[in-house]
Amino acid sequence: MALIVQKYGGTSVGDMERINAVADKVARMHAQGHDLVVVVSAMSGETDRLLKLAGSAHSSPPARELDVLLATGEQTTIALLSMVLAKHGVDARSYTGHQVHIRTDNVHGKARIVDIDDKRVRGDLKKGRVVVIAGFQGVDEEGNITTLGRGGSDTTAVAMAAALKADECQIYTDVDGVYTTDPRIVPEARRLDRITVEEMLELASLGTKVLQIRAVEFAGKYHVPLRVLSSFEEGPGTLITYKENEMEAPLISGIAFNRDEAKLTIRGVPDQPGVAYRILGEIAGGNINVDMIVQNVGADGTTDFTFTVHRNDFGKAENILKRLGEELSAREVVGDDKIVKISVVGVGMRSHAGIASAMFKALADEGINIQMISTSEIKISVVVEEKYLELGVRALHSAFGLEKAAQSAS
Amino acid sequence: MALIVQKYGGTSVGDMERINAVADKVARMHAQGHDLVVVVSAMSGETDRLLKLAGSAHSSPPARELDVLLATGEQTTIALLSMVLAKHGVDARSYTGHQVHIRTDNVHGKARIVDIDDKRVRGDLKKGRVVVIAGFQGVDEEGNITTLGRGGSDTTAVAMAAALKADECQIYTDVDGVYTTDPRIVPEARRLDRITVEEMLELASLGTKVLQIRAVEFAGKYHVPLRVLSSFEEGPGTLITYKENEMEAPLISGIAFNRDEAKLTIRGVPDQPGVAYRILGEIAGGNINVDMIVQNVGADGTTDFTFTVHRNDFGKAENILKRLGEELSAREVVGDDKIVKISVVGVGMRSHAGIASAMFKALADEGINIQMISTSEIKISVVVEEKYLELGVRALHSAFGLEKAAQSAS
Repeated sequence: MALIVQKYGGTSVGDMERINAVADKVARMHAQGHDLVVVVSAMSGETDRLLKLAGSAHSSPPARELDVLLATGEQTTIALLSMVLAKHGVDARSYTGHQVHIRTDNVHGKARIVDIDDKRVRGDLKKGRVVVIAGFQGVDEEGNITTLGRGGSDTTAVAMAAALKADECQIYTDVDGVYTTDPRIVPEARRLDRITVEEMLELASLGTKVLQIRAVEFAGKYHVPLRVLSSFEEGPGTLITYKENEMEAPLISGIAFNRDEAKLTIRGVPDQPGVAYRILGEIAGGNINVDMIVQNVGADGTTDFTFTVHRNDFGKAENILKRLGEELSAREVVGDDKIVKISVVGVGMRSHAGIASAMFKALADEGINIQMISTSEIKISVVVEEKYLELGVRALHSAFGLEKAAQSAS
Repeated sequence: MALIVQKYGGTSVGDMERINAVADKVARMHAQGHDLVVVVSAMSGETDRLLKLAGSAHSSPPARELDVLLATGEQTTIALLSMVLAKHGVDARSYTGHQVHIRTDNVHGKARIVDIDDKRVRGDLKKGRVVVIAGFQGVDEEGNITTLGRGGSDTTAVAMAAALKADECQIYTDVDGVYTTDPRIVPEARRLDRITVEEMLELASLGTKVLQIRAVEFAGKYHVPLRVLSSFEEGPGTLITYKENEMEAPLISGIAFNRDEAKLTIRGVPDQPGVAYRILGEIAGGNINVDMIVQNVGADGTTDFTFTVHRNDFGKAENILKRLGEELSAREVVGDDKIVKISVVGVGMRSHAGIASAMFKALADEGINIQMISTSEIKISVVVEEKYLELGVRALHSAFGLEKAAQSAS
């Protein structure tokens, strides 16, 4: 008998039939004696409907009021799910973010959770009730309604699990777990039984869109065992653990990739202290996130500076860099928005040499030229020409034997 | 420069065009220097949409969860109106019932307001903001969302006006005031410039569906000057005062009527103490409201007992009465659901004899038979055959000269 926080996303509660399916699953687990807290998103399509409504009211609606409007989406779902649970004979209580004091900062539209008051939820659980909580929303110090940004329901679930010291936080989604890579590219891609938070963070940020990254960070910080499962199929999903596997970790857990990259290079900049800061400062000032950064010192006392940005920001970043190039008397500024990033991720690589060379060899064998390299403790990323994305991912998936069950998988 | 609470109903905020019209009106009054608190209902059709959604979740949804769902209706309106006000250059803040602590009892679906915390609203007004409040909803002692029942937004507005000691509470609706009777029946019906709370209570409960009766009671209790106006046309509307007009009051303010009546009679009941209690107790136990009650004592030591109920409750009441009739050895039980009630209302009748006889004469002149009579200090009601409704109302409107402006009208 465990205390479990479950989260169902918009697709999982997309219509009354699906809400019934969720209620059925919840009722069965509740009958098994588990204490259940269920966090839900707005029904799929609802948030878009509300955004459209807001757009018809104001071309750029005040963020505070947009949050008031958007928060109705999850409020609708919690009421409906609780009604359907009642029909299933389950005593359920719904709560908005406001009602269970999901305290956030006051950054409307992307607030961060500061605190949760779990008293009320514990009281209901003690009475044998299922607690249904609106994801994605909270309330700031002054009682204003805030939202956590798209996908914020994951964060609500993890934060609630942390506050309740739940045995597990289960994120139900439309995929049945975390895969070694995208099965649409590599049909042999395999579901991982478990993965560490660190690996998940690298995979999530690199393009495996299973979980909101902030939710994973939160889970890691508070040691919440997190499991990704399918709402539509039975199965164990993937457990995201905060401890490294006690058994020998697999060398590589997965291959991530990101299509939405663009690359910018400023060449022949005088190699002086503060130049990197100046360049990155201006880019950040334009509200542009920089991903990989590579700097090479040339022979003539100048330096080349290359970085990647989201493809949407390419034009803006290029303009900033061209202006800077003139101010810094750089030789030239060049850009390329036809590139992708491919990464191998695995906590095992820490203690194993040779991963990088195995990766580079696999790509070279396919004639794929590497344009940039960046490494972290558990990840090696390369930038390659866009056309090589699928070929590169397949080559690496095969080179590291990911289609076979890892030795240490539980 | 006054502090004014305005309430706009569902039709007045029925679509974006109408919300824009409301914002325009609010912005103009705000520019004139008034402090404004705006209470809004759900957009027309929205509550029905939500009720349908609830119906698809549960044939008889738990009242607590229904309130959570319905409360999203007004929350949507407050956000949209605040956005549109921002477009009009007005700094507006929206609040749910929860956020401004509209404390109610815990009777979900028809909660009563217990208390309002006006601190937050006063703070915003001081900063020159327009405050937009969700009508119809509140929060009980435990923080559960409650609703006040259909039309409850009127009550929210009046309660807010009372808490703020507002100079006026303006109820914007789709009629431009309170009329001497229904203009669809009597084209000469005239808008009243002012009416007392007592008269309004009698008119409202008797079928003039302009204001929720609880709102009027509330206004009377806290001496809130209440004005009914049209959202769509300019005009002074009707002021509902808690003081009797200082000038001579008109004899009769209006003719009210109610089509949804049914009549039940139990004849030949032994005339013993407790019989009336027994009959009404059983009817009330069936959750049926009784309106008029008439009892006559016969010559043979038995009594006849007649009362009216809402037509929807006719069958249920008849069944209860038939069972009671047997238990009490009554002679017979008869019912009639083809009756209507017509009333003349006016504080002036207190000090003027002859109103009743003038009323009965006017009806007799048209050959209308009176089946029941009931009187209060400021009202005389009669039950007549359904087919005489229009004729009776017109005869009375004319007999009391209501088409002419009252002597005392301001």
